[in-house]
Amino acid sequence: MDVKTKLKEMSAELDAPIKSYIEDEAPRNLIEACRQYPYAGGKRMRPSMVVAACRAVGGDGEKAIPLAVAIEYIHNFTLVHDDLMDGDEKRRGMTTSHVLYGLPTAILAGDALFAKAYDIISDLDIPSDAMRKVLKKVSVAVWDLARGQQMDINNENSGTVSMDDYIETIRLKTSVLFAAGAAGGALIGGADDATVESIHEYAMNLGVAFQMFDDILGIYGDPEKTGKSAGNDIRKGKSTVMVCHARENIKDKDTLDRFMSVFGKLDATDEEIEIARNILKESGSYDYAIEMAEKYTMDSIKCLDCLADSEDKAFMKALAEYSMSRDV
Amino acid sequence: MDVKTKLKEMSAELDAPIKSYIEDEAPRNLIEACRQYPYAGGKRMRPSMVVAACRAVGGDGEKAIPLAVAIEYIHNFTLVHDDLMDGDEKRRGMTTSHVLYGLPTAILAGDALFAKAYDIISDLDIPSDAMRKVLKKVSVAVWDLARGQQMDINNENSGTVSMDDYIETIRLKTSVLFAAGAAGGALIGGADDATVESIHEYAMNLGVAFQMFDDILGIYGDPEKTGKSAGNDIRKGKSTVMVCHARENIKDKDTLDRFMSVFGKLDATDEEIEIARNILKESGSYDYAIEMAEKYTMDSIKCLDCLADSEDKAFMKALAEYSMSRDV
Repeated sequence: MDVKTKLKEMSAELDAPIKSYIEDEAPRNLIEACRQYPYAGGKRMRPSMVVAACRAVGGDGEKAIPLAVAIEYIHNFTLVHDDLMDGDEKRRGMTTSHVLYGLPTAILAGDALFAKAYDIISDLDIPSDAMRKVLKKVSVAVWDLARGQQMDINNENSGTVSMDDYIETIRLKTSVLFAAGAAGGALIGGADDATVESIHEYAMNLGVAFQMFDDILGIYGDPEKTGKSAGNDIRKGKSTVMVCHARENIKDKDTLDRFMSVFGKLDATDEEIEIARNILKESGSYDYAIEMAEKYTMDSIKCLDCLADSEDKAFMKALAEYSMSRDV
Repeated sequence: MDVKTKLKEMSAELDAPIKSYIEDEAPRNLIEACRQYPYAGGKRMRPSMVVAACRAVGGDGEKAIPLAVAIEYIHNFTLVHDDLMDGDEKRRGMTTSHVLYGLPTAILAGDALFAKAYDIISDLDIPSDAMRKVLKKVSVAVWDLARGQQMDINNENSGTVSMDDYIETIRLKTSVLFAAGAAGGALIGGADDATVESIHEYAMNLGVAFQMFDDILGIYGDPEKTGKSAGNDIRKGKSTVMVCHARENIKDKDTLDRFMSVFGKLDATDEEIEIARNILKESGSYDYAIEMAEKYTMDSIKCLDCLADSEDKAFMKALAEYSMSRDV
């Protein structure tokens, strides 16, 4: 399966629904700010997974579309607030919300998108008991997501983040929303509890692989494609699987000191960044990160065993593989 | 009925539940920030109204307590984000969230409180169909609340805010959350649709009176009690019922110019503020605001006619009267 083509197809199908829930209302500047991120496109991995999970358990994918939109709105609400917290001025070439509309409107747009997501969930065309379960999964996920983002901030420039801390952080900041969406799709599709939990676990593992690979792209990706300067994660002192591995495994004190003197150095030169990148390669930290991402991808795919073969199951498998084979 | 005593009683009953949902989890700084505002107390008007509305329609008040907590968390989430947007360093003597914990944690604490509120709603001990109705009311309210707050920001320093604009703004930024809480309480109590709508309308009107009186307190209240400098709303150019009335009714151009030269002047002296306050009194704008708040209070109380007499109905009536007779 060509996952990129399939994602583009799904994305095209989701485009109109994603643009249908934010109506023309006053005040115009808030409505525009609410629309900016969801209307700007993206890979739409999360909403595609919601619909695929619903179909893969034998459900009617149409009924999962509103939840797909809600999950995309929640994802976008977190991006708007993230960009503001990080003080980022650009996101993949687009001027960020707080720069375009100002801090108050960016905060309110995030809050409003979050509220709209729940409004959509309240209208899901499924029995109310199932809707209640979806609501629970999504609400717990966003609570956990906030915890994960705070951990990520706390980890910055910390010299003591362990591999376990790192995994816990990315499970919370990245996996839980994938998992709430996928499990929600399965619930809408009428899956039994065991299947819902398997699909939840599929997406939790996928999310870890996705974030690990994101962290690899952040340091070794092509800035032209990722839209991020390759050295920034090192300059910001961002704890990644590679950094945790390096800190725990580089035995030569001079080499580790050389790496740590660049890690978290906001004004590090490109030459210094290159030295740090080379150290992560030579220490085996890069290879380790790839191996770990592969392991989580395989764990993710294994969780799909409970499903009968179908095009949607194949797409879900392909999504797991894609989470660590993309260039952006 | 002594409403302040009754509010204190209700508040004492709600204290333990309000402190029971945010468990000890990592990371500690986020959990502390989530607890700060809800644990700090306050009048607890919104959660008290949720429980009273449930009982007043003949329901079991215990079942409404979780929603009361959820509404209080949502109220507090908006306060955390508001204080950040306004750059306020103090709220009734307490150091604000973003000053204490930093901007990112304050944003995340607001988001997390909002998510926790929905988690609580998903667990409400009522039939799922009723829970769905509560969810809808709350979600629409928070969407509207964000619109109202954006309108309020847009109105600042605007010389063209009409009375209708003002009323619409405060209905959205203040009334809708009162109304979602009260209607939600009635739904939990098993009220029929017509009764739920009457109680919704009761709280919408009460919210308008409450906000009008808040705006009066902001200019004529005792700063010792309100915790706000009496001139700040004028310095910030905040459109209130009095300002709208003054702009539409002061016929003497010199007087109006004198007022407008102080309105929105951030460095206005105390003498200038005193002149502006006197103009609002002499123009009848202060009296008009009081009359309007009285009208909305009466409209609010009229909506309670559908309820049989009870102590809770009496408390709801007293709350409406209190919304414009308080000193803080």
